[in-house]
Amino acid sequence: MTGTLYGLGLGPGDPELITLKAHRILSGVPVIAYPAPDTGPSFARQIAAPYIGAHQLEVPVIVPMRVERFPAQEVYDGAAETLARHLDAGSDVAVLCEGDPFFYGSFMYLFERLSGRYETEIVPGVSSMMAAAAALGRPLAARNDVLSIVPGPLDDDIMRARIEAAGAVAIIKVGRHFARIRALIKAMGLTSCAGYVERVSLAEQRVLPLADVVEDSAPYFSIILIYKGGEGWKARTAAATE
Amino acid sequence: MTGTLYGLGLGPGDPELITLKAHRILSGVPVIAYPAPDTGPSFARQIAAPYIGAHQLEVPVIVPMRVERFPAQEVYDGAAETLARHLDAGSDVAVLCEGDPFFYGSFMYLFERLSGRYETEIVPGVSSMMAAAAALGRPLAARNDVLSIVPGPLDDDIMRARIEAAGAVAIIKVGRHFARIRALIKAMGLTSCAGYVERVSLAEQRVLPLADVVEDSAPYFSIILIYKGGEGWKARTAAATE
Repeated sequence: MTGTLYGLGLGPGDPELITLKAHRILSGVPVIAYPAPDTGPSFARQIAAPYIGAHQLEVPVIVPMRVERFPAQEVYDGAAETLARHLDAGSDVAVLCEGDPFFYGSFMYLFERLSGRYETEIVPGVSSMMAAAAALGRPLAARNDVLSIVPGPLDDDIMRARIEAAGAVAIIKVGRHFARIRALIKAMGLTSCAGYVERVSLAEQRVLPLADVVEDSAPYFSIILIYKGGEGWKARTAAATE
Repeated sequence: MTGTLYGLGLGPGDPELITLKAHRILSGVPVIAYPAPDTGPSFARQIAAPYIGAHQLEVPVIVPMRVERFPAQEVYDGAAETLARHLDAGSDVAVLCEGDPFFYGSFMYLFERLSGRYETEIVPGVSSMMAAAAALGRPLAARNDVLSIVPGPLDDDIMRARIEAAGAVAIIKVGRHFARIRALIKAMGLTSCAGYVERVSLAEQRVLPLADVVEDSAPYFSIILIYKGGEGWKARTAAATE
């Protein structure tokens, strides 16, 4: 009997925003894997830390974070083989995923290598996008709005077209693209309906109208939400600046 | 001291997919409100049922579901006044929300009436879109894909343009628009990379390639995911039909 592979969505950062199901599986598996940068702590592990026991084996998957590219596939080849050995030995393995495993997550690289060979279950999680809307106190999208999720590394021309076509927009992976994206939103006349959230749901969370961000850069875990039709949104973000 | 208003995301349907935070608040509040149809059970209440105690006061907000329109605002005026009386009396009130409160949720109608008057906290939840991707075993979006969420009631012309512009698409609120949407996807040559999920995460969940759906209608809680570039997706949905 081989083990089961779990992709566990852990939510946006607050350990209390994991699901009962992810909590149950996390507490019971003998092997826990998670992405980790080459230096510094693993964010996924930090979210799960309150629930990890000393008897559980931890397998960090070291992914160089400095380069904002798709990481070398060799990393995932090696990690998949390590996890395969545990699965072959009959141990269930949980891979910890920030947010939701299948919403722009790196879990897909392990999934595509292992799901054909082992029983696999994905446990969906709360995405940072939902948490950002909650923090801003404004619907992400409503009624018959088209909501587009736009990755920050995209070129200005593509980004502009996608923002123009949607009623609501979430720009993710903002990071070092922040100043350029802010300038584009300003040029489109949409700054007044844009909100900015950094490290959502963590103690160091920052929530403010985009117009009030004085920095020219943003951390990797930041998001910009645009709600075009939102007069209520404008009023609320304006009030938040007082 | 007035009470606090909570908007609780309960996730897509499986009671185990609620967060630890929603569970804690749900277990502790004296007053629980939820949307309910004029006939039949409340889906939000069904999700929360295992965690509701006999000592908690329940306030159904009756919203006629038969008409797929924006419900009469008078319903929410009345419900807001009812909840305001509990909040004024110092009772915390939790409003149960299917999925995530701010992802196309009707909670916004109570939020806009009450959040200016009472302390309000939104607890984000797992959306049915994330759960549908998990059920299909395929990333919702990855790398620098643009993901667009397109409500089913939109006209063919708008829907076609939004599908053309995105790398990945989630069509929500499919319901009685199913046959028209399926025909559009076929005309666009995208059927082979489209998956269909009905009543996701519940015991009666159905997951299949769009091409294999024989019915001409779908329940309200159904979703179509399109992943254009997904060769892996195509292989997997093909395998699922064997």
